Amino acid sequence: MDLTLKPIGHVRSPLTNREAAPKQGSEGAPEAWIELDPMYAPALLGLEAGGRALLITWLHQGERDVLQCHPRGDKNRPLRGVFATRSPDRPNPIGLHEVTILEMRPSEAGAPARLRVHPLEAIDGTPVLDIKNVDRQPAG
Amino acid sequence: MDLTLKPIGHVRSPLTNREAAPKQGSEGAPEAWIELDPMYAPALLGLEAGGRALLITWLHQGERDVLQCHPRGDKNRPLRGVFATRSPDRPNPIGLHEVTILEMRPSEAGAPARLRVHPLEAIDGTPVLDIKNVDRQPAG
Repeated sequence: MDLTLKPIGHVRSPLTNREAAPKQGSEGAPEAWIELDPMYAPALLGLEAGGRALLITWLHQGERDVLQCHPRGDKNRPLRGVFATRSPDRPNPIGLHEVTILEMRPSEAGAPARLRVHPLEAIDGTPVLDIKNVDRQPAG
Repeated sequence: MDLTLKPIGHVRSPLTNREAAPKQGSEGAPEAWIELDPMYAPALLGLEAGGRALLITWLHQGERDVLQCHPRGDKNRPLRGVFATRSPDRPNPIGLHEVTILEMRPSEAGAPARLRVHPLEAIDGTPVLDIKNVDRQPAG
């Protein structure tokens, strides 16, 4: 079974280190660009500026051998299993981010397609794994 | 950069093939068990029966080279990019499932820890990648 991820693109963000990034998009995270590998541009059909989307990322600075942590890094709070938290430190550091698509630019001659989104707490260079319809109702 | 997933466990479900499975958990999906590799049991600390959790799975029967599809397999509907759908056919077939934890059983002497959850449309044998706090507010 193939369990190797293929990044579909990368985050371009003014956030450049994990310590400076908000812990959640809702905590004041900035706009960011998603640069999509041109080969995946056909998979964007139907997404539109103004719409909502769920981004799935690979939090590449996450520590994969951490099983318990203090929520929000606050040592006054009791240890919890990482599966009961949203910590980026976990066996498979997959990030989920519900965003608004502010702008879409098509790819040109091998250059990436670009999506401007808000808010996004993932740092610059974070691999993007997937984009999904955010509709909770059946859509595909 | 390591982009290889480590399954933390597997789905045990009465659903055994993709064609028979509901497209969404909310469409009549059954209960299922999550069998968790014993090494990850410490990461469950803080999860409780009765709580909600977000499961992340690897939809191992998804076709990774599909970029566009007819939503819900309905050829009367216009083609959409897979990133505008919830189709399991996509470059990285990651599944998201919001469930209620009905029961938790600790691991015993190398046997898996088990979580009984509902509803889950993923089929028997689906690798589980992650469990996250479903709280949209900051929690870890």
